[in-house]
Parts: sequence; structure tokens; C-alpha cells
Amino acid sequence: MFAVLRWAVLFLPLCLGVRLFHNLYCETGEVEIRRNPEPSKYGSLWPLPQKVQLSAGLFQMSSASFAIVDAKQSSAGSDCNILQDAYRRYYEYVFGRGVQRDTRRGGPPVLTQLQVWISSPDPQCDSYPTISSDESYELFVSLPNVVLKAPQIWGALRGLETFSQLVHEDEYGVKCVNETIVTDFPRFAYRGLLLDTSRHFLPVNDILHTLETMAMNKFNVFHWHIVDDPSFPYMSKTFPELSRKGAFHPYTHVYTYDEVKMVIEFARRRGIRVLPEFDTPGHTMSWGKGQPDLLTPCYSGAEPSGTFGPVNPILNSTYDFMAKLFTEISTVFPDAYIHLGGDEVDFTCWKSNPDIQKFMEKQGFGDDYSKLESYYIQRLLDIVSSLKKGYLIWQEVFDNGVKLKPDTIVHVWIGGGSNNEMGNVTAAGYNAILSAPWYLNIINYGQDWQKHYKVEPLNFNGTEQQKKLVIGGEACMWGEYVDNTNLTPRLWPRASAVAERLWSAQNVTDLDDAFNRLSAHRCRMVGRGIAAQPLFTSYCPKEYWGA
Amino acid sequence: MFAVLRWAVLFLPLCLGVRLFHNLYCETGEVEIRRNPEPSKYGSLWPLPQKVQLSAGLFQMSSASFAIVDAKQSSAGSDCNILQDAYRRYYEYVFGRGVQRDTRRGGPPVLTQLQVWISSPDPQCDSYPTISSDESYELFVSLPNVVLKAPQIWGALRGLETFSQLVHEDEYGVKCVNETIVTDFPRFAYRGLLLDTSRHFLPVNDILHTLETMAMNKFNVFHWHIVDDPSFPYMSKTFPELSRKGAFHPYTHVYTYDEVKMVIEFARRRGIRVLPEFDTPGHTMSWGKGQPDLLTPCYSGAEPSGTFGPVNPILNSTYDFMAKLFTEISTVFPDAYIHLGGDEVDFTCWKSNPDIQKFMEKQGFGDDYSKLESYYIQRLLDIVSSLKKGYLIWQEVFDNGVKLKPDTIVHVWIGGGSNNEMGNVTAAGYNAILSAPWYLNIINYGQDWQKHYKVEPLNFNGTEQQKKLVIGGEACMWGEYVDNTNLTPRLWPRASAVAERLWSAQNVTDLDDAFNRLSAHRCRMVGRGIAAQPLFTSYCPKEYWGA
Repeated sequence: MFAVLRWAVLFLPLCLGVRLFHNLYCETGEVEIRRNPEPSKYGSLWPLPQKVQLSAGLFQMSSASFAIVDAKQSSAGSDCNILQDAYRRYYEYVFGRGVQRDTRRGGPPVLTQLQVWISSPDPQCDSYPTISSDESYELFVSLPNVVLKAPQIWGALRGLETFSQLVHEDEYGVKCVNETIVTDFPRFAYRGLLLDTSRHFLPVNDILHTLETMAMNKFNVFHWHIVDDPSFPYMSKTFPELSRKGAFHPYTHVYTYDEVKMVIEFARRRGIRVLPEFDTPGHTMSWGKGQPDLLTPCYSGAEPSGTFGPVNPILNSTYDFMAKLFTEISTVFPDAYIHLGGDEVDFTCWKSNPDIQKFMEKQGFGDDYSKLESYYIQRLLDIVSSLKKGYLIWQEVFDNGVKLKPDTIVHVWIGGGSNNEMGNVTAAGYNAILSAPWYLNIINYGQDWQKHYKVEPLNFNGTEQQKKLVIGGEACMWGEYVDNTNLTPRLWPRASAVAERLWSAQNVTDLDDAFNRLSAHRCRMVGRGIAAQPLFTSYCPKEYWGA
Repeated sequence: MFAVLRWAVLFLPLCLGVRLFHNLYCETGEVEIRRNPEPSKYGSLWPLPQKVQLSAGLFQMSSASFAIVDAKQSSAGSDCNILQDAYRRYYEYVFGRGVQRDTRRGGPPVLTQLQVWISSPDPQCDSYPTISSDESYELFVSLPNVVLKAPQIWGALRGLETFSQLVHEDEYGVKCVNETIVTDFPRFAYRGLLLDTSRHFLPVNDILHTLETMAMNKFNVFHWHIVDDPSFPYMSKTFPELSRKGAFHPYTHVYTYDEVKMVIEFARRRGIRVLPEFDTPGHTMSWGKGQPDLLTPCYSGAEPSGTFGPVNPILNSTYDFMAKLFTEISTVFPDAYIHLGGDEVDFTCWKSNPDIQKFMEKQGFGDDYSKLESYYIQRLLDIVSSLKKGYLIWQEVFDNGVKLKPDTIVHVWIGGGSNNEMGNVTAAGYNAILSAPWYLNIINYGQDWQKHYKVEPLNFNGTEQQKKLVIGGEACMWGEYVDNTNLTPRLWPRASAVAERLWSAQNVTDLDDAFNRLSAHRCRMVGRGIAAQPLFTSYCPKEYWGA
């Protein structure tokens, strides 16, 4: 009865007393902004930089004369491909393709250069981004030249995006930018987005498209949930049967070695890490098709039922297999971390299997199958540690008391909202990332970006020291109902709300201003060919006309 | 307190006791099908024809030899453009573009002709479809030739779609079809889909794309909610200021006369009526920008507040304007019906206006502003009747007791689900169409197509005679959160559920079989270039690679 009343309290305010509109039934309960977007004093900046000083002074730029160049003092030169590549990309974002327009006679002063100054001795041109990459930058938009100063190329990439967001068009189509000083750095070092390529296959092109859009939102981790129960699209060189038998189709629904490498390099050029997840011991149905004896045979009474459960944790062959597979993975994926999953292990099948029962007895696990799960995970973690990789794991692994390396990152996903688990994980001294309130696959009618935006990741009971262990968060787009027909509009600009929460200062919480800036940011994404969906009744100067 | 308990009862079963899955929070409450699609005995037919006899006998077809031709007995000849156009379209659906493959040697017997036989004296080649168009057909797939027999071209169009749905590929890519007899006709004559081009502008190309997909689902009415509060994209020849000032943009966000005509002809060729809605007296904010004195000035105390309310019903100029505008509309749109709206009139502004108050007094309306609304609507209906057009109106007009022509169609939208209003409308002797349970703009996590599918439009208390007055239903996609970035995946295949409910026999209610057929139908739409979103974890033989 108490439960009844509690739910009633939760639901009543959302659904009663709502005037019937043609377009509105029962709302999500969020306070919705129902108006046209207005100009923000911060223009279309998204995510909002840590410090912005905008002045009235206006400059104009011409595609014929404007150039993005290395500053003389820069430690990065013309052989820094990642920067040269970014210069071309952002020139095109600002001026479009093939546009050549002479400067107007008269009008505001003309800016002709954006000078990029990498100030540390090692610009990191050939490195991969890491959790400790420096993404800070300073941007000075003034005469005679725009200067973008950053310790490392990673900050320069972020600053180029910010510069492109400062550019606007006057009514003659001339590109203008206000005198501005920006000092910026991310609030959190880990700002992730998960795509799930197992429930539905996502063509590589759609992954690249998503990475491109992530960079526009200053995300820096692509969490690639690459395999799971339904399919195994990763083509392993060591175990080619895994995708040959476990993918939806062995030729058309797989990721080749070259494609994976292309994704990693494309991401690197945008300052984005690629964090692969190979989730075990659950979520592995597709693995069993190409690797005999890997999964636990389930029993019906005294006989095998013909179905299979999680990875079989009692066979040495399992660990031989995992050692070889993760050796390959640790070579293919350069990131210092691998996500090992460990979530949602169903014990039913293990319980049914007499060999497992014997093993439990021998180990003295009693009836506690979470001990068996921990046994498996422990051995897996040792394997991965020996490969000199760090790991992330879903929160259950921590909850079950598995011994973790001090640099382990615990991924909190259960329960929605900000929650106590963040306190538990950090109290135990582990790094934590938050996904619980940011399951973007869960959709609602209306502007649910506001719900995602209002989350405060540090909103849990804990010491200052604990709060420092929260290294960031991640928006998750699980794939049950998502493939490349609907991925992009469902992701953007909803994920942008998470992006700002993870980049901008803690006090950036003005929903009205966010609505204005996000509306403009969304139109900019649309103008760049991204099918980002609208926030509300509105129009864009440049509507979507297809990718 | 009673309300509290009632809501609790409604919500509890949906949200408690749901196991936490990575991918599932609180579900929609629908019984979800969570499995891979399996072959249906009805293949991929959607909507399911009234009668299908499928046999084991198999035929093959070659793009080099197969042709769709007029039967000798047909009353339609080579000058029947609508049919010739459809032959080309369906040939392409079956064989793809530019494919030329010789028949295999050996294998099943080869079919070389689909003969289309229009059996009534007037094939209706140059007509527009109407509420009484005959969409029935018979399809005989057997040697020596496939025969498609239909009284009118409208049935032939439906039968061509059905034939294309019977074709499948063997593993060598050869097009095959089973020996089959189909006898088919729609359960309801009105099977509509609403698009809203005022909250967001939809480029003509997206409207055509939607019409194309409607034909694949045997929808036959495009309800074009063309103007509303936010924008007036219809370019009127009589009142060009309406779009010049009321559209989001006078050049880029409008529908020209030629474009409207193109939409109508494109729809006609697919057996689809175009039913325009010009909604008054509410929902007209954008009208006021280009037509001074049309809207009611609202008052704040004794002074005009500067804002405006619904159409001003007390001025003769209002009716002069409406007469001229609807004269134009009745010429531009050939359909026998116009949708006049009449929903959601907010009386606040009328109440504030002293001139309106005087008029109310003079007319003896007391304080009942619905009488004023009825007064306006009555005069509007008289205008439209004099133009020899029938009309549809949203249910409020009926609820307010306005005198309606006997052939009026009342559009039921309030309250969701099947509901009593259908009984009220039909008891009064009016035709009714149902939209209340089919607001597709309202989205939920999971497979809400099942909820739409389970609706039974005749599920209300009423006589047989009343049930006959239900001429169909309509899926509505209101535009607050929808533009061309997300329209297609949000619409399809969710609207397909409504399409089958309105076409197929009342007893076609097997959700499992529907899931199997709809999954295949969705993949077919994807194969035809439509970004229809997935039902659940799955893959298509031909995935979406962009339109």
C-alpha cells in the first residue's frame, strides 16, 4: 500500500491537470520550454566554455583571404597532420565547400589569420588521446590575428570548434566574428558516448558520422559496445570463426581490421579515444556460435537442454581463449583501457549445470554464484592486467566485491538519476563514471534533453576527495530499437545536453539560456549535414536537406 | 484520494517488478515481443489481404523477360498514364534499377507477364480518388500469366503493391513468387495519415517520400495540416501576404501553387486523396501577420494588449476573407472534402474584448462563448457548402452542437484509445473517423506499434447502423518535435500498424504473426530506400544505406 501511494505521488503531478492539446497528451513531467528560441548572450556556443568575454567589436572574414596557420612560436609544424587536417576541416565548417567570396569593401575590419600556437614541447601530434590529455586552450579573437593557444593539440582541436561556433553570418552572408577572449578547459576528463553495434549493425560510415558530431560537442571517448548476445561483428584475426558464425552476416555485417583501424584514426584526429567493450561472462550468446565449449551448457534435469548460458568459468580452455583474444584486442585498440563489461550475469544456467555445481562445492562457494562470477572476473582481470591495460567494468563487478586494480574505473548505470552508488564506488577509492541518468535509448515525448541536462554528477554524499574520483560520465545509446535509420536524430541534440554537463562549469545550469544556445547549436549541426532533431516548434536558416 | 488510487492502479503494473536490464527501464506496459522475427505463413504481406491462398508451387521471374502489361479485356489502355506509371514503379520495386539478369536454366517455371485487367467501363484513369473509389482487386499468380483484376485502377494500384510483396528472392538472388490467389478489399474506405507542415516546415520532397511509403502501406488519404499558429507556408494567390509574412521564410519555407499541384498529382497516381486542412478559428496566429483585422485583438483591462486571439467572428470582413480564401482552396484542391479544423478554441481573448462582449449580448449568447464559436463555424460551413465541398471537422464542433450537413465527417481525437465519442457522433447520424489512439507524435520507449495495432475502431457501444458510419481512421504525426531530420523513422513502421488495422479484416489480430510480417515489411521498406526504424534487435538482408 505504501508502494501504491508512493507511485501515485510520483505519477500524479505528471499526468493530471494537463490541458488537452492536440499535440500533448500526458507529458514527461519535465518543465518544458514552449517558445521560440531567442538569441543568447553567448550566441550559439555549446558546450559553454569556462570563461567567455564577448565584446561588441566586430570583424569580418573572407574565404579568399582567411587562413588557419601554425603560429611561429608553435611547437607543432606542417608535419603535424592531425592539426593540418583540422585546419582544413574547420575552414570548411566556417566557409562551406567551394565558396570563394571577396571581402566587402568597407564594413568591419578584416581578420585574415587564425594562428594556432601549441605551447608545450611535445605537441602530441602522433599520440593518441588519453585520460590525462590536456584539452585546455585560450582563444583571442582580435586584431591583427586570431590566436589560439593550447599546451597540446587536444586543446587546439577544442578551440578550433569553439572558434567555428563564434563565427556567424550577417544578412549579406558575410562571415563575422566578435572580438572575444575564451579561456577554456573541461570540467571532467572523461566525456563518453556509447554505441551498441551488436543489437543492430551500424555501418562504419555511421560511426564516423557520429565521431564527427561528437567532436562538435567536445565528447572525447567513444565507448564501442562492439559485441553482445545478438551478434559478434568484430572480425578477430585470432578467432575468425567468432564473426563468421556470430555476426548477423559474415561479410556485410562485420568490422574488418582495417575498418576498426580507420575508426580509431578518425577518432584520434578529433581527440576522441576509442574504448572497446568485450563484455563477459554474460551477454555472450553470439560468442558461443564460433567458439565451441566457451559457453556453459544449461541442463534440464539431468540432461543438457541444448541451450547455453554465460561463459563457462570452470574450464581452463576458457581462460586460454580469453588470454589470446584479449592479447589481440590490446594490440588492435591502442587505448590504455578496455571495458570488460561484467554486467547482468544470469545464474540460472550455471545453477542447472552439474559440473558447475561440483566446482562450486570444491571451491567452497556454497550457493553464492556471485562468488563464481567473481572468480571468473578475477582471472580475466589478471589476464588483462598482464597485458598492461587498465580496465573499466560495469558496477556489478564492484558490487560483488571483486578485487580491482587501484586505477580501475567503475561504470555506474543502475537506477537512473544521480545516486548513492557513486558514493559507494568513490568511498572505496575507485574512479567512477556516471551513465545511470543518461540512457539516451530511453525515449520520451517532449524535451527530455532538459532532464539529462539537469543532472549533477557530483550530487551524492561524499568527501571532496571522493568527488575528485568522479572522472566523468557517458551517454549510452543501446541498440535494441536503434539502427542507422534512426540513430542520428535520436542521438542529437539529446546527447549534446550531456556534453555540456560534462564540459562546462558546474554553475552552468540556466535552462532558458541552454534552450537558446542548444537551438542554435542544433541548427549549426543541421547546417553541417547532421540530422539532429528539433527541440520544439522552430525552423533553421539552413534546414536539413539530406546528408 | 479516489483519483490517487485509480492512477496508481493504472501505473503500477507498468513500472514495478520490471527486472533491471541495461536496455530496459520502465516499459510502456505493453506486452513486448522480444525475439527474432520468424517467417510468417503469409510471408511479408502488409497489410494482410482479406483472403490469401498461398500454394507450394513456385515460379521464377527474370528482369529480362518479365513485363507488366494491360490485359486484352482491360478497359484501360496505353493512354492510362496512372497505370503505365505504376507498371514502371512496381517493376523497379521488384527488380531494382538497371538489373538485367537472364533466367536460370532449369529451376521453377518462368512467369513472364503480369496482366492488369480493369473490368469496369470507366477505369478512372484521369479521375481523383474519392471516398467511394473501389479499391478491391483479385490477384491470380499462376501459369501462364499473373492476372490482376480490378474494377477500377485504384484496386489495380493496391494489387500491384500486393504482387510486389509476394515476390521474394532465392539464395541466388532470383526473384520468385508462389502460386497464389488473393481476393482483397479494404475494411475501411478512409485510411488517413496527417502531416503537420506548420510547426516545422517539411520540404516537398519529404512529403512525396511519405506519399510513396503510404502507398506501400495502402493508406489512401493524406491529411495535410498545412497551416497553424507557428507558420503559414501555403502560398495563396488571392492573399499572397499570408505566406509572405506568416511563413517561417517567404521563399525557402513555403509551398508554391506548382508544388501543391505536384503533391496532389503524385498522390493521385498512388490512389491517395489530398485533404487540406485550414484550421479556424483557433490555431491561426500565423494568419494574422498577413491579414490585418482577421484576428481578435485581446484586451488588458480597457486597452488592447497588443496580442491577438482566434479569428474575429463579429466582423463581416472576416467572412469576406474566408469566402475568398476558401474559394481558392476549393479550386486548388480537387478533393470533395476540406478539413475545417475547429479544435481547441481558447475563449480568453474573446472574453477580454469589449466589442465581442457587446456582440454576445446583442446575439443573446449570454456567457456561453461556445455559442460564439458555433456562430462563426456555422457561417464558415455555409460558405464552404456553397462551394460544393464537403467538410471534416474536429470533434469539438460536433460537441458544441453546430448544425452540420448530413455528409459531414467528424474527426474524433480526444481521450486516446477507442472511446464513447465514436458512439455519440454516430448516434447523431454522422460519419466518423478515429484518430484518438493514433497520435504517432507521442513516442514511447519500446514497441508501441503493438498498442496502435490492438485498437479496434468499432469497439464502442452502438448499433450496427452506427458502426457503418465509421468510415475509417487516421494516424496523426503532429510536428512540434518532428521535421525532416526525424520524420521518416518516427513514422514508419509505426504508422504501418494503423494501416493494417484499417485495411485488413477485423479478426486479423495475431500479434506474433503481425510482428513477423511487419519485421519483413519494414525490411522491404528499408530496401526501397525508406528509413523505417527497427521493431527490435534484428538485421535486414538489405540495410539502409541512405535515401
